[in-house]
Amino acid sequence: MGEAASRRRARTGGGAARRAERSAHRVETARFIERNIPLFEVLDEAALEIIEANGETVLQEVGVNFAANPAALDRWREAGADVQGERVRIPRGLARELCAHAPSRFTQLARNPEKSVEIGGDTMVCAPVYGPPFVRSATGGRRYATMEDFRNFVKLGYMSKWLHHSGGTVCEPTDIPVNKRHLDMLLAHMTLSDKPFMGGVTEPSRAADCVAMAEILFGAETVQANTVMTSLVNVNSPLTFDDVMMGVLEVYARNNQACIVSPFVVGGAMSPVSVAGTLTQVLAEVMAGVAYAQLVRKGAPVIFGTFVTSIDMNSGAPTFGTPEASQILYGAGQLARRLGLPFRSGGALCGSKLPDAQAGYETANTLNAALLGGVNFMLHSCGWLEGGLVASFEKFVMDADQLGALHKMAAGVPTDMKAQAMDAIREVGPGGHYLGCAHTQEHFKSAFWRSDLLDYKPFETWDEEGARDTQALAAARVDSLLARYEAPPLDPGVAEALGDFVAARKAEMPDAFS
Amino acid sequence: MGEAASRRRARTGGGAARRAERSAHRVETARFIERNIPLFEVLDEAALEIIEANGETVLQEVGVNFAANPAALDRWREAGADVQGERVRIPRGLARELCAHAPSRFTQLARNPEKSVEIGGDTMVCAPVYGPPFVRSATGGRRYATMEDFRNFVKLGYMSKWLHHSGGTVCEPTDIPVNKRHLDMLLAHMTLSDKPFMGGVTEPSRAADCVAMAEILFGAETVQANTVMTSLVNVNSPLTFDDVMMGVLEVYARNNQACIVSPFVVGGAMSPVSVAGTLTQVLAEVMAGVAYAQLVRKGAPVIFGTFVTSIDMNSGAPTFGTPEASQILYGAGQLARRLGLPFRSGGALCGSKLPDAQAGYETANTLNAALLGGVNFMLHSCGWLEGGLVASFEKFVMDADQLGALHKMAAGVPTDMKAQAMDAIREVGPGGHYLGCAHTQEHFKSAFWRSDLLDYKPFETWDEEGARDTQALAAARVDSLLARYEAPPLDPGVAEALGDFVAARKAEMPDAFS
Repeated sequence: MGEAASRRRARTGGGAARRAERSAHRVETARFIERNIPLFEVLDEAALEIIEANGETVLQEVGVNFAANPAALDRWREAGADVQGERVRIPRGLARELCAHAPSRFTQLARNPEKSVEIGGDTMVCAPVYGPPFVRSATGGRRYATMEDFRNFVKLGYMSKWLHHSGGTVCEPTDIPVNKRHLDMLLAHMTLSDKPFMGGVTEPSRAADCVAMAEILFGAETVQANTVMTSLVNVNSPLTFDDVMMGVLEVYARNNQACIVSPFVVGGAMSPVSVAGTLTQVLAEVMAGVAYAQLVRKGAPVIFGTFVTSIDMNSGAPTFGTPEASQILYGAGQLARRLGLPFRSGGALCGSKLPDAQAGYETANTLNAALLGGVNFMLHSCGWLEGGLVASFEKFVMDADQLGALHKMAAGVPTDMKAQAMDAIREVGPGGHYLGCAHTQEHFKSAFWRSDLLDYKPFETWDEEGARDTQALAAARVDSLLARYEAPPLDPGVAEALGDFVAARKAEMPDAFS
Repeated sequence: MGEAASRRRARTGGGAARRAERSAHRVETARFIERNIPLFEVLDEAALEIIEANGETVLQEVGVNFAANPAALDRWREAGADVQGERVRIPRGLARELCAHAPSRFTQLARNPEKSVEIGGDTMVCAPVYGPPFVRSATGGRRYATMEDFRNFVKLGYMSKWLHHSGGTVCEPTDIPVNKRHLDMLLAHMTLSDKPFMGGVTEPSRAADCVAMAEILFGAETVQANTVMTSLVNVNSPLTFDDVMMGVLEVYARNNQACIVSPFVVGGAMSPVSVAGTLTQVLAEVMAGVAYAQLVRKGAPVIFGTFVTSIDMNSGAPTFGTPEASQILYGAGQLARRLGLPFRSGGALCGSKLPDAQAGYETANTLNAALLGGVNFMLHSCGWLEGGLVASFEKFVMDADQLGALHKMAAGVPTDMKAQAMDAIREVGPGGHYLGCAHTQEHFKSAFWRSDLLDYKPFETWDEEGARDTQALAAARVDSLLARYEAPPLDPGVAEALGDFVAARKAEMPDAFS
């Protein structure tokens, strides 16, 4: 199939991209964030050295399990690890040495070249929520997600100026068989948006399908020579790498596609009930996973992932936007940079059931930590609700709007002569007013970030217009964006080839719903 | 009156404090925050030097107005400034030299000595919202504030664990004549709470009343030898110091009481429409005001204040929680530290009309910036709504709860052997579970910060309990706190003397409502 796709691709060429550039109804998308501000670092050198030394001790003395994966055990044995059953004990220094082969920064191509992203170094790329089985909307309440919901979220992502990435499983389309979902999901990202996207990870064969579809969209040579997918590979914390996730990682790494090696940790349950202990385990897990990716293919692009929440010891629920979660994010960012790896963490994380004030506090706590903590790839940047069980339409546009503030914050403080504004201060003088002065007239349009969503109206106007809260304003924005949506142009030959591929693969498989 | 108060104080002694310690129904209050984390600094050395040089240029070339205040003009002339009419041009270096006399850190006594606070250096003291003419509650909607509202906010502040300070004008008691409000307000802070408080600033004579009442509460010698009030003196930006505010500052500085010299700036209207330009003006204004306080009394405690919002150029409304406001906060903190002054900024600032998601995002943006930006005194820490026009009962307890997260974040990341948790990692191993391990059992109660308000329940429980949003949860907490409120013990002699003073002063004045 890869060959057929290649042929078809050769025929259609880069026409889609050229047409996208010519298109009249272009949707504005901001360039990925490049930080022109320092980072916040919560750990001092001594703390970092303790955690790094402990991480090596965990790898060497406790080890990690590579379950049901003889090939992985062979690779590790060959690399010099001590392999006993499924347990892999990695000698001090080996994992870090292997991690050094991974690039510190890489480009993920989008089919619209203007929307390709750089991941690593000073950059921050924002992708939407990933994984919720439920959706919520102001009018429809909370219910199981469908493929129609999925498509609507992809459309909203395409329309969101501050979102750089179309993401992956923006919600679980529960009306599609589990073994076929990845096909419909990827087709939606490829056809309804022109932003970069993530591949499926629920089975190695499904990852292979995603690579094949990417080859249809981009051409086989482009895929092998570039990264066109960044996919989420969770670690089964503590310290376990299962055969499905590692099989997926193998497929992507072999094909030069990026994986986020991401411990999924509820602190106190899957890691120690302390920040330093959790960071130690996260570091050991990421080093083992990233090192393994390098054993599969030296130089394979990877991301140091950290998804950590704390646990509420009263209810056992994971909690979000807490100070410990921020401390872990800040600390993990430092550890990632010392490993020379791009860093994934953060997101619009909250535990609230509704897009209410709790959601706002918790989300903003995490978004701010992600910006200042050096996150390079921010999954869950918008739409996350109820601990990730729910993708919320309203919260999607609320969060996506807040991402604009991060862009402005990241740009830093200009101090050129215009920014110094000494002429304005001289012109206005004591007791004067800046609204009418020349400097203000010249700069007011771009000087201050402005929300496209939040309420800035006088009380009386707001009251007359129905005294709407943020959820109500967001619901109106969701409707307006979806009504205005137009698909980005795509070469009809490519679109047809993608459709054919999906139809053919579906026909080969019986439906499976679990 | 000062003398009578002193005599009465001598008779009653420190009984109130001793009784407070013995009291059975003590309300837990956290010690002020001491940061064990680094600060975030958005400006580099070059930017700081540009802004500092420009600040001196503004003082020397543009100057500041000290309106309708011949005594101030005399003081400035004597200090070496160039005074023309009301315009005071301060030679380069003079203001900074005068600022050096102010302490970099001072203690504000509370009548309960356990609740005295340190302001400056690594500390952060949280005080509630200040100034709103309106209140809002879930059941009562939005209406003009009354003295009963005021007392209820003081009670809530007293009951709030993470709030260190009782504040000042928590709302404007509009049912009390303007010229008498300060008496009732101060009486409420002194009798309904035992936390430190702020004095009135609407007239120099009212500031003098506040000093007299403080002398009754603490004893005259204690007041003259210590700081027992920290009061808010706004600058009329741009670059104007009016006679009322400066008269108030003179009263407090002469009596060794602290003033926050605080430019009140909507960027783009009262300062240039740029971060660097606004910081330049803020620095010039604070230096002039602090320097003047030192001319009144060398060594008078002062705080470098910065209340800055950006303007929405569409509606003209001030906006909150924006990236530019955070940048100004971070930059002003750096400038304050380089001047060696305690720093005031931040707060639970938002523009939203309701305690909804917008309020949550904007507030959290500012609270996080305040913590990482080195704020020492955070006015408006809780209860602020609608750009400060409204004091919200629900948001008061919502914000006050979030202050707990700041305490935990500020404590930093312990890396002692227990925090490293290596024994736990060894005990649990790959694929295990930390919930039951010895380390978790020992530490889970204190390991992670837990909200006292937000919803962490399973969806089904939350749904059965009425699917309440944050505002509804907060309304219930407001009711519960007020129902449980008991006044902290106060020496009956002191209480009587305070009441007598207020009654006598009121009898001397006709009512004035504007």
